[in-house]
Amino acid sequence: MNLGPVIMEWLDELAECSEDPAELTRRYLTPEHAQAAELIMRRMREAGMDARMDAVGNVVGSFPGPRPGARRLILGSHLDTVRNAGKYDGALGVMLPIACLRWLRERGRQLDYPVDVIAFGDEEGLRFQATLFGSRAVAGALDPAMLHAVDEDGVRLHDAMRGFGLDPHAVGDAGYRPEEVAAYVEVHIEQGPVLEAENLPIGVVTSIAGAVRLRVEVMGRAGHAGTVPMNLRRDALAAASEAVLAVERICLGTPGTVGTVGVLRTVSGAVNVIPGVVEFTIDVRGESDDRRHVALARIDEAFAEIASRRGVLFDCVPTHETGARRCSPWLMRRLGEAVEAEGIEVRRLPSGAGHDAMAMARLTEIGMLFVRCKDGISHHPAESMTAADAEVAARVLLRFLERFDPDERRSMGGKPGAA
Amino acid sequence: MNLGPVIMEWLDELAECSEDPAELTRRYLTPEHAQAAELIMRRMREAGMDARMDAVGNVVGSFPGPRPGARRLILGSHLDTVRNAGKYDGALGVMLPIACLRWLRERGRQLDYPVDVIAFGDEEGLRFQATLFGSRAVAGALDPAMLHAVDEDGVRLHDAMRGFGLDPHAVGDAGYRPEEVAAYVEVHIEQGPVLEAENLPIGVVTSIAGAVRLRVEVMGRAGHAGTVPMNLRRDALAAASEAVLAVERICLGTPGTVGTVGVLRTVSGAVNVIPGVVEFTIDVRGESDDRRHVALARIDEAFAEIASRRGVLFDCVPTHETGARRCSPWLMRRLGEAVEAEGIEVRRLPSGAGHDAMAMARLTEIGMLFVRCKDGISHHPAESMTAADAEVAARVLLRFLERFDPDERRSMGGKPGAA
Repeated sequence: MNLGPVIMEWLDELAECSEDPAELTRRYLTPEHAQAAELIMRRMREAGMDARMDAVGNVVGSFPGPRPGARRLILGSHLDTVRNAGKYDGALGVMLPIACLRWLRERGRQLDYPVDVIAFGDEEGLRFQATLFGSRAVAGALDPAMLHAVDEDGVRLHDAMRGFGLDPHAVGDAGYRPEEVAAYVEVHIEQGPVLEAENLPIGVVTSIAGAVRLRVEVMGRAGHAGTVPMNLRRDALAAASEAVLAVERICLGTPGTVGTVGVLRTVSGAVNVIPGVVEFTIDVRGESDDRRHVALARIDEAFAEIASRRGVLFDCVPTHETGARRCSPWLMRRLGEAVEAEGIEVRRLPSGAGHDAMAMARLTEIGMLFVRCKDGISHHPAESMTAADAEVAARVLLRFLERFDPDERRSMGGKPGAA
Repeated sequence: MNLGPVIMEWLDELAECSEDPAELTRRYLTPEHAQAAELIMRRMREAGMDARMDAVGNVVGSFPGPRPGARRLILGSHLDTVRNAGKYDGALGVMLPIACLRWLRERGRQLDYPVDVIAFGDEEGLRFQATLFGSRAVAGALDPAMLHAVDEDGVRLHDAMRGFGLDPHAVGDAGYRPEEVAAYVEVHIEQGPVLEAENLPIGVVTSIAGAVRLRVEVMGRAGHAGTVPMNLRRDALAAASEAVLAVERICLGTPGTVGTVGVLRTVSGAVNVIPGVVEFTIDVRGESDDRRHVALARIDEAFAEIASRRGVLFDCVPTHETGARRCSPWLMRRLGEAVEAEGIEVRRLPSGAGHDAMAMARLTEIGMLFVRCKDGISHHPAESMTAADAEVAARVLLRFLERFDPDERRSMGGKPGAA
């Protein structure tokens, strides 16, 4: 099919839209967002799609389906990046479906249901800390308070929207009605090492992990590094170090969870002062909310023991929480069949990272394909994947599209089964 | 004698000389240094001393001793402070001897040897990181490279000296000749909790701990907090946390040493990223250099084991090292007798903190008295001591002065005995 090299070329081209010529950074509502949107719309039109920008800056391309009243399949991912990003996170899930639809059109093939491809304007939340802004808007699940978020230059989101040519009073227009949507399917690089370790190019996602983030402050007693004997100290850093190791040990011992202390610092520390205050963050994720709650309860217990033994205080404040989102069994089955038809073993795996599909789950049923990436590296310029794997993913998506029935779920009736 | 309240009043007065009205900060070669020097010289003159500023901005007051050719006893400490300091660190060892000498003069008593009281202009090194600059100059042990040190506003030390009215080419003039000095004795708050815990107002210092400081970088592998399974991680922070606890455990188990990780931070960390690089500092001190070396060797060994088990790298760079300085046994004996004569149990204890006496040990023999401070707190506005303890310290110093014989060491012959 030769779709792999085309997709890779498009991704290289898209990566040129960057705020910094030395590295890839593309934030929401910047000139580079507009530049990327133009490029994506051009590719969409070449693929025979109607392309437009929606009310929050998402790019939406519609591929016609002749059957009257058929519900839409939405494909997509995000066009924004983290700072100093890789070229594949988000972008793959935008460009790959466009390439597939262009391939269909060039061969005169039709789908009997309409497909929308959406490039969400803000998933990473780098600029306004308004993670999943684009997909929340499409899902009709935007919290209006988000419009007051401020970037590091003091610019409010609603003012940035106006500067971008959007009307912040019209954000509701970006939303789809649930009854017009059949499903949302997202292709994304794995951002982890599992598929590579198992020598598989592609996998079917079972669920997107729920996550909780905490900000922790440890209060001990500052003191002179030379004059306070070891046994009279209440060292906040020694206590925090035990806490870091407790998070690691507990998540190792609680299958289906991962836990990370990503940021830690001594507050007003000096080389010759016993740390009095230490701040750190915790990020715990679980394939199921139950597993995550078990890990958190064990962490709480461990911290209480450390605090009491060392005479320090732990203050833990949750800053973020999202429940796990299960992918729909019927979509997983159809995606798995498409993988199998390519002669590839069907590997089902959870996603530890968050994706637009999490927000889209408020609107419709979701499915995801993961594509193998190199060394599990993401959010970094070394993020990498192969043209051969892009080709495999495109073939799998095409097989899925050709067999997709937007009424399958409806005809099954009832609620989604357990994942 | 009522010297305690006088000393406390003078210390309150000296604390008014601050760069910031809301907190006590007095750096080297600032207008507040000059203001404090004026105040100290006035108090010296009231005590019958000749007072002057030396070639590096130290204040030197000379109390006459009639015996021709007798060697000088130098008393003193420093007039500079850390940022947001207490009122007693350094200042006590300047004001207390002046008050004692004034008391002698008011009663018409003479000492048969000359005494110089020195208020060193820079011990803390806050402004130019040129720790012990004042006492190094007096000891004739100044490294000329220090004159090129730069403060946070980009001002060089030699230019700051000129701005202060000093000639940077004349710094050598601040040095004493060893043959004219009998000893250096410093009174200082303990800055630790030992005397308070033992309910004693005063103690005799046995040695000033040697110290080594290291800057450590731990290199692991950054990764996505949600996608990398716990068992595939090389978390630099988890490794650093084990290192912090190893420093603590090893110094607890190596008597005569203390070890502190005062500053630690994840480099470019984010709440949802597995830390790839962590930086931290280590400060290890020992009453003897041997004990300190034992602790350091054990720390090295522990780090190597952590690095190998976790697949991370430790890079340790020493940034500072000073050997331990023993106080002279004959001075410790004389100071102890003065304490005993006040009916107080003689408690000998090492100093974990550095003091001007360390630099003065290059010039002459040293002795130190520690005065109890509240909760062991220093380098903090809550630093505190009582007028009653100042009174005790003044009485002990007066007893010591009245019995001091500048020729005692010379008449004993030979080298100082082992501490």
